[in-house]
Amino acid sequence: MKTVLVTLPVEERHKPKLEAAGPDCEFIYVGLNGATTELVQQADIILGCVPAGMIQASPRLGLLQLYSAGTDPYIVPGVLHENTVLTNATGAYDKAVGEHAFALVLTLQKKLHRYRDAQNAHRWTDFGQVCSLSDCTVVVVGLGNIGLHFARLCKALGATVIGVKRRPGPCPEGVDELCLTDELDSVLPRADVLASFLPGTGATKAMYTSERFAAMKNTAVFINCGRGNAVKTEVLIDALQSGQIAAAGIDVCETEPLPENSPLWEQENLLITPHVSGNFHLPDILEKIVDLSAANLRAYLAGEPLRNVVDFETGYKR
Amino acid sequence: MKTVLVTLPVEERHKPKLEAAGPDCEFIYVGLNGATTELVQQADIILGCVPAGMIQASPRLGLLQLYSAGTDPYIVPGVLHENTVLTNATGAYDKAVGEHAFALVLTLQKKLHRYRDAQNAHRWTDFGQVCSLSDCTVVVVGLGNIGLHFARLCKALGATVIGVKRRPGPCPEGVDELCLTDELDSVLPRADVLASFLPGTGATKAMYTSERFAAMKNTAVFINCGRGNAVKTEVLIDALQSGQIAAAGIDVCETEPLPENSPLWEQENLLITPHVSGNFHLPDILEKIVDLSAANLRAYLAGEPLRNVVDFETGYKR
Repeated sequence: MKTVLVTLPVEERHKPKLEAAGPDCEFIYVGLNGATTELVQQADIILGCVPAGMIQASPRLGLLQLYSAGTDPYIVPGVLHENTVLTNATGAYDKAVGEHAFALVLTLQKKLHRYRDAQNAHRWTDFGQVCSLSDCTVVVVGLGNIGLHFARLCKALGATVIGVKRRPGPCPEGVDELCLTDELDSVLPRADVLASFLPGTGATKAMYTSERFAAMKNTAVFINCGRGNAVKTEVLIDALQSGQIAAAGIDVCETEPLPENSPLWEQENLLITPHVSGNFHLPDILEKIVDLSAANLRAYLAGEPLRNVVDFETGYKR
Repeated sequence: MKTVLVTLPVEERHKPKLEAAGPDCEFIYVGLNGATTELVQQADIILGCVPAGMIQASPRLGLLQLYSAGTDPYIVPGVLHENTVLTNATGAYDKAVGEHAFALVLTLQKKLHRYRDAQNAHRWTDFGQVCSLSDCTVVVVGLGNIGLHFARLCKALGATVIGVKRRPGPCPEGVDELCLTDELDSVLPRADVLASFLPGTGATKAMYTSERFAAMKNTAVFINCGRGNAVKTEVLIDALQSGQIAAAGIDVCETEPLPENSPLWEQENLLITPHVSGNFHLPDILEKIVDLSAANLRAYLAGEPLRNVVDFETGYKR
């Protein structure tokens, strides 16, 4: 009998769905933060995330179905046994993260973060000119499900959308123009908005360099809803303070939680949200992940192909 | 020779366009705040707004072409002579105000105003569940050009849109359902977002009563980008503090500028912008108003029909 450790924040109504997918399994529900090294070591299957350090390349672990789209802590050599299948939750966060990034863009373009500060100071002050997304060119770096959803929202408001992806392919709906990651530098000067949805991999680390910010318009808005290490804290601060770009909105930081004494907090033209764009903050996220977990559990037990299998080399879905 | 007083914030490049429309006129350019009672009394035509008190029902004033969409200070009896034609700038602000209201909705729904406060306090805090506009019913009160533009933005993001207007008519594009102002109460309980774009008239004053807020969902967001006197300050504060609604975003207040000691500033779940959604904050607003002013000046001098003539009884375009 296989043991299934569940750290998904399921409600009672979800359990029959999971248990029907593994009728001969024993299910242990521990909630988001209830995993222990002992429980992880006894698990044949884990549905949800656990601290990577608890896994210790357990040879017993056959399937780790994450509730995150990001896989970075788990693809580090030595974390998972070579026989463990790793699947992520790609597809569950499109709407949540896409809309959050879109809201960051509009907030910054309409200067609502600064009007909030003025409100808190009881000041009736006019911050002048704004721009319209309908007049903007939006560069979307990372055209997975989340980036595509964001692209479609921008397109719906009338923006021109340039998508940036690793591999050539057909231009998806909602994207006006496609460019390869290698050609990113060629489109930076055109971006009124640059929004990044990249996972944390060796190739994406610190990719937004000072030179790249310098190549952007000084009116541009930078958004990061991918991984925080795509831009070094001091590079971002310098880009904002020196006026290389006009504003930035980030849901992710190099160090999370952001330390209380980080100078990032103090940047007026930076809007920070504490890695909340995904989580389980839209009700349909949990539903999608429970459905995916049940389907992958069933497929795994039946020896059939799984969805969202992660390539350890790239960190992306295979 | 007629005298044209121009308070529009024109640039040099706009002047030939205006002067070509009135080749026999004398043009006096004074900028936004440069009008004096003497200049106003000498004007046959005014292009732009001036303080209503300077007009004193001047019988010489034949045309007052406002740069605002709102007309409330000018339709008060005794302000304009009965022979003065009043035209407004309806149509110039659709994109600017519609987008601003739309940005207010997203900011509030994604709790970005509260994350900004947390950022200012250096706090990495998760405020939990958000909602998606794609799952929302948006009630748009006031289906002029601005309300319609806002409606279309919401529709583009997947919302269900209910439009509320004074007179029956065909259901416009971007609106799923139409209801008459008299029937507003019947749709209040369905609103996840209620956005008001009404002008300041006797009929709209204090129309958002405590009873109406009580009829709304306690998860609803209220937006006012029309006139501030549509809701009494104490009613709005009570609706927010008692939890009749979840949040509000207002670009207009009962008293403007909002006094420094107003309790409105302190409402955490209220986002205030200082009547900036229109102004000349998007570049195309001034272009549209200069074009309209030139067209109406030409038509007035030729004795032809004008655009955007205001009905003194209703304050609306006739």
